[in-house]
Amino acid sequence: MSAAEQGRRQLHLNLFMLSTGHHEASWRHRDASPQLAADFRYYKRMAQLAEQAKMDSIFIAEKYRLNKMTKYRVIPQLEAFTMQAALAAVTEKIGLTATASTTYNEPYHIARKFASLDHISGGRAAWNIVTSTGDATARNFGKERHLDHSLRYERAHEFVEAAVRLWTGWAEDALLIDQEAGLYADMSRIKAADYEGKHLSVAGPLNLPRSPQAVPVLVQAGSSEDGRSFAARWAELVFTAQPSIESAIAFYADLKGRLKAWGRNKEQLKILPGLIPFIGDSEAEAKEKERELNELSVSDYGLYNLSALLQTDLSDCPLDGPLPYERLPAPEQVQGQQARFQLYVNLAREEKLSIRELIIRTAGGRGHFTVAGTPIQIADTMQRWLEAGAADGFNLMPPLLPSGLDDFVSKVVPELQNRGIYRTEYSGNTLREHLGLTGMSAPQPV
Amino acid sequence: MSAAEQGRRQLHLNLFMLSTGHHEASWRHRDASPQLAADFRYYKRMAQLAEQAKMDSIFIAEKYRLNKMTKYRVIPQLEAFTMQAALAAVTEKIGLTATASTTYNEPYHIARKFASLDHISGGRAAWNIVTSTGDATARNFGKERHLDHSLRYERAHEFVEAAVRLWTGWAEDALLIDQEAGLYADMSRIKAADYEGKHLSVAGPLNLPRSPQAVPVLVQAGSSEDGRSFAARWAELVFTAQPSIESAIAFYADLKGRLKAWGRNKEQLKILPGLIPFIGDSEAEAKEKERELNELSVSDYGLYNLSALLQTDLSDCPLDGPLPYERLPAPEQVQGQQARFQLYVNLAREEKLSIRELIIRTAGGRGHFTVAGTPIQIADTMQRWLEAGAADGFNLMPPLLPSGLDDFVSKVVPELQNRGIYRTEYSGNTLREHLGLTGMSAPQPV
Repeated sequence: MSAAEQGRRQLHLNLFMLSTGHHEASWRHRDASPQLAADFRYYKRMAQLAEQAKMDSIFIAEKYRLNKMTKYRVIPQLEAFTMQAALAAVTEKIGLTATASTTYNEPYHIARKFASLDHISGGRAAWNIVTSTGDATARNFGKERHLDHSLRYERAHEFVEAAVRLWTGWAEDALLIDQEAGLYADMSRIKAADYEGKHLSVAGPLNLPRSPQAVPVLVQAGSSEDGRSFAARWAELVFTAQPSIESAIAFYADLKGRLKAWGRNKEQLKILPGLIPFIGDSEAEAKEKERELNELSVSDYGLYNLSALLQTDLSDCPLDGPLPYERLPAPEQVQGQQARFQLYVNLAREEKLSIRELIIRTAGGRGHFTVAGTPIQIADTMQRWLEAGAADGFNLMPPLLPSGLDDFVSKVVPELQNRGIYRTEYSGNTLREHLGLTGMSAPQPV
Repeated sequence: MSAAEQGRRQLHLNLFMLSTGHHEASWRHRDASPQLAADFRYYKRMAQLAEQAKMDSIFIAEKYRLNKMTKYRVIPQLEAFTMQAALAAVTEKIGLTATASTTYNEPYHIARKFASLDHISGGRAAWNIVTSTGDATARNFGKERHLDHSLRYERAHEFVEAAVRLWTGWAEDALLIDQEAGLYADMSRIKAADYEGKHLSVAGPLNLPRSPQAVPVLVQAGSSEDGRSFAARWAELVFTAQPSIESAIAFYADLKGRLKAWGRNKEQLKILPGLIPFIGDSEAEAKEKERELNELSVSDYGLYNLSALLQTDLSDCPLDGPLPYERLPAPEQVQGQQARFQLYVNLAREEKLSIRELIIRTAGGRGHFTVAGTPIQIADTMQRWLEAGAADGFNLMPPLLPSGLDDFVSKVVPELQNRGIYRTEYSGNTLREHLGLTGMSAPQPV
């Protein structure tokens, strides 16, 4: 730890890596390389840059269905876990967070794959736990309908419990490796999972020795009531979309407050709101970058996306009029991203946005906090959130990649380091160490 | 192609990478490093060496359950697909063959993961298709019993058909990437899979553009009747355990003869029998290496393994007596590895082996062809098999790793190259190119 870092709260930074960037029109920008969206070297370079900037981890999202708007937007993401396994071989310190769904997977596979990633990376694996959305996904797995929201979370609880039992089944001293006696393992130190739930069961034990972190860092990003309950029980790292510092403070207090019921303390869960920075040498230049991307948004695309999220066909609504509030479903009827539904509706209502304005407002960040300014202004914002109890750090979502990452690393990171609120070197090797989760036990089965 | 290679049949070489080696006692040898069995760097070095030796591919097996004999033997293999994804990032030419089961997976996941591996590796992915064995595996996936042999293969056919439809759903010209017009993809060139089978269904389309090979090389290793039928329909690369050149010739002729019924020609499927070489500067030195490893075999382990394979408890049989043939099940009743059951029983009967002799005989290679000799003798054997129509190459299974690979690469490979029957440089970039499968269409859905 440098002198400047002494005693100051430290920011955690995660890079949310997404093809040409998080702005939906990013791929159309002259600085984008949409033809490289499935090229590993493109991601390798960004991952190595994030590691040079000493970020905690790289996060990759994952969907199990084709986005219908692939016509209008670069979607091809390589499968998240496959990418993270490949990136593990060409990075040394940075954490690797891959998304996998508890609705359409089996605990044994997930446990085995993440344990392998944790071995390969030397303790840098993290699992972003999602429950997936929509019937289109269900039909890719032989099912007519997606599981209901509450049943999905019920299954998710069972799934993680089973996986944790698998990961912790091998004691640290299970391996004997006694070549002379011909004894490789002490079978009494390898326990079966023997998990029997309502939704799934798994016998175990896992066929891999305990990995460096034992349990990969558990990550979660659902902010609905079910999502928050789940996070309070299991999550060690939470990504969240917060449109303002006020909403972020409320979310932070709510979620950290829920930990005690599970016998957990506030340091055992880090909250990283999404941050979409437009970086300019002047504020005007930054705003101009934002305007330029917003103008590239294809309106059909925006309207389709908004219709899907609100589960209401908006194609007959005037773009410059308000949302048809009377036709929207009640939030509890929404199957899918309940928290984001609520966020968009509240945003439109409170700021009296037209449909067009709401589309533009959310084009860049899907409701995540967007800031356009100089490196100093952006660092000011980040520091304010950190010190106000709105965040333990940020999930960095550059609107345009790779240039938005290059700018952040070369301009904002040094500013954060100068202020002593962000590391200049990794002090440990595992992701748990980066996140300050060591010394605390990993999640335990009940 | 070098002058020596002109017009000669070429060997294909696959490295079957397995922790400390294929001999069950390998981990006890003084040259073994069992403490590195879950260390990625250990495998990375071997993979890079196999690539320097211009091998076609690296193969990694995969099991979804803990081996009960973990007490006696190093088992921890990192999950095959995760490993291959990591190796993709640190190799450039060599093919990457990962095992995944059609019984305990979903086609959408498998298609998405292998397409991603094919993108990341630039067209080097291959899928070893297995149907898994045993109720212990079933119980790791919430099932009481494993699917019956014929139902497993029925599901396997459906699974591969569905996966091929997913892989071939994106036409080569589906991507427009027209930044000016804001059009990313031509949706009319992306087809759904719409697969509805008896065992599974999947809607599709896949959410990834066509990968370099479109379909990963399809690999198969079951030699039962069901397995051969399956291979004739789908496989492009077959691994097989053949104890002698005679059995290999018969297998080769049988399997290649089955291709015509599927409209396939003999070049569209390459057959690689397993080869377990003990390499010495003299034949005596090689035999000594073999003897030394056989002596390290733990007899409890050998008896347990044999009992499991023959599905008969042998613990009350005298080690120096014959197999209790009258108590063995009929081959068609065997749930699991029918072909290997038959192979072991035939071997014992024909060579009048005692149980002890059968254990020692199979300790090193589980029924695969074993040869102990000088590099010239081993190259002679390989050339004889190639020219006699017993093999298109070999699945190299060094009894002891990494030293057995080091010896093979430094001593046997140059000898094969001097004879003009093995490449000195890769002529292509993809695994299909290495295997001479280009110009022929990849497997098509019916």
